[in-house]
Amino acid sequence: MHDHIVKSYDDEQRRLLDETLRMGEMAASQLEAALDVVQRRDDKAAERIIANDEAIDALEQEISHDVMKLALRGPMARDLREILAAIRVASDIERVGDYAANVAKRSTALNLSPPLPHVAGLHALGTLAVKQLRDVLSAYRDNDIELAQKVRARDAEIDTAYTGLFRELLTYMMEDARSITACTHLLFMAKNIERIGDHATNIAENVWFLVKGEELLPPREKRDDTNTTGAL
Amino acid sequence: MHDHIVKSYDDEQRRLLDETLRMGEMAASQLEAALDVVQRRDDKAAERIIANDEAIDALEQEISHDVMKLALRGPMARDLREILAAIRVASDIERVGDYAANVAKRSTALNLSPPLPHVAGLHALGTLAVKQLRDVLSAYRDNDIELAQKVRARDAEIDTAYTGLFRELLTYMMEDARSITACTHLLFMAKNIERIGDHATNIAENVWFLVKGEELLPPREKRDDTNTTGAL
Repeated sequence: MHDHIVKSYDDEQRRLLDETLRMGEMAASQLEAALDVVQRRDDKAAERIIANDEAIDALEQEISHDVMKLALRGPMARDLREILAAIRVASDIERVGDYAANVAKRSTALNLSPPLPHVAGLHALGTLAVKQLRDVLSAYRDNDIELAQKVRARDAEIDTAYTGLFRELLTYMMEDARSITACTHLLFMAKNIERIGDHATNIAENVWFLVKGEELLPPREKRDDTNTTGAL
Repeated sequence: MHDHIVKSYDDEQRRLLDETLRMGEMAASQLEAALDVVQRRDDKAAERIIANDEAIDALEQEISHDVMKLALRGPMARDLREILAAIRVASDIERVGDYAANVAKRSTALNLSPPLPHVAGLHALGTLAVKQLRDVLSAYRDNDIELAQKVRARDAEIDTAYTGLFRELLTYMMEDARSITACTHLLFMAKNIERIGDHATNIAENVWFLVKGEELLPPREKRDDTNTTGAL
């Protein structure tokens, strides 16, 4: 008998969920740390965040590997949904980690110019995204579709905050050409955070899929109009 | 007997590959069409491209569904690699479709300002990305890891072209504040295309995974330094 080395299917599946949640918390912490270094203008700390992203990437590899092993055991339909959800959620988290590292990376470029007042707006936007991430990870852990739906609905707030910040930055650039380089970095950082919000929404939709299967999702409001409105 | 309705495993897997390749070709065509409408300043055609993105999204849903069905049949290790590769490749293609639709969307915003000379540079960058996409889809179809490695190596060219365009746009914005809105759209469009290049690279890495399994990939050069260089 090998029962001391061959883990049960349930144990393995539990481990997969734990790994994915751990990966999610790492990405949320990375984003928090990135928002913090933007405010403190701390290049050394930014470098650490950028280097940490590798740990998130490694965890995604590990999760893919575990998914392979589990799928080879011939899962039932519900188990298979969990496996598929884990691989999708892990891929969303991996992207969140990239975006957080990108915010840290651009912060070091930003520190070559004088501080800009819009950093506060970026921090507020990022704080919304951190909350979205933590909430959607709880929803995923608890199979809580109500919380997942709340996260989906709240993405419109991030879009609104992003659009506001985007407009402010454009106005500022037009008034002061010397701020253009720094403002461009802030534009991309804001966009990164807005994208993190989208990934939180994707994870919310995977919670729905996990619990409800193929059942159709209710429609959702989108409010990011920065790429179509003529005013911008 | 149900052999007239129950398809063989190989048939289903072939169908999965065909669907994924079809999805890839749709995304490549969408990108080509988006590059075209940017040059022709054709808002009507841009709307069509934006609407077409739904077909790509629907195909990704279909692929996920087929992957579920196949995984439930208890595949062998190599088959499972194909299934996992298909779901990852489909997800990369879905993102490419999003970026292509985004280029089309921003083109309509761009058409509210006078034409900019940098549209030619965007077109050149996009043409590189279309080639990368088509090549990596061929590599995926033929399990051609040599071609896949070429695609990975060539991503550095896209990064270089993107960095060049980025610098030009910043300089232009500094010289003419009235161009800031339009140039910002072009900056994001260029970034979208640079990201499409990254997704082509992801697909190339999945071809490697498909053929070589867990074997480690050789290292790759990165040349996009727009988010760290002080010069920007």
